[in-house]
Amino acid sequence: VRKLLTAAERVAGIADLKGWQEANAGTSIIKSYTFSDFTKAFGFMARVAHEADKMDHHPEWSNVYNQVDVILSTHDSNGVTAHDIKLAQIMELIAPEFL
Amino acid sequence: VRKLLTAAERVAGIADLKGWQEANAGTSIIKSYTFSDFTKAFGFMARVAHEADKMDHHPEWSNVYNQVDVILSTHDSNGVTAHDIKLAQIMELIAPEFL
Repeated sequence: VRKLLTAAERVAGIADLKGWQEANAGTSIIKSYTFSDFTKAFGFMARVAHEADKMDHHPEWSNVYNQVDVILSTHDSNGVTAHDIKLAQIMELIAPEFL
Repeated sequence: VRKLLTAAERVAGIADLKGWQEANAGTSIIKSYTFSDFTKAFGFMARVAHEADKMDHHPEWSNVYNQVDVILSTHDSNGVTAHDIKLAQIMELIAPEFL
């Protein structure tokens, strides 16, 4: 089981990630991405899916048309770990390619 | 605006589609798909996304690991139209490739 981040570590972890915030009493981090259309939104998801699979750490996410809502949490640890921050960072790197 | 299906047409439309059911007071149809892992689940989504984009009719869906939950509705019509049944049929054709 991966080590949970402390509250201070979570805050520091998302401080540089635009639009990410804590949710579910600090057990997850979330962001809503808005793209110009479905193709861009799903293109983003496909690129992220590839990276998530390489990390073996998967998002919980929903999509409707140009919108992608993401919830990151480490289920085995019941909260936010360094893996969630890492995956959020990867999403932030990928998103601009589709905006 | 596309023509809404009647209640009888909705029932007939999903009668042949295994696991699909009405939701939200008959304004949408839903199904939860379970695959063996994330790669299969996302592979299914990618194939469906391509077909949905060709139809210009998009699902509302969420994914966590091997699970894909789908809600189909025609937003402009505030309910279920022939396009939703068509997209559900396409999903049923695609899903077995990933099961």
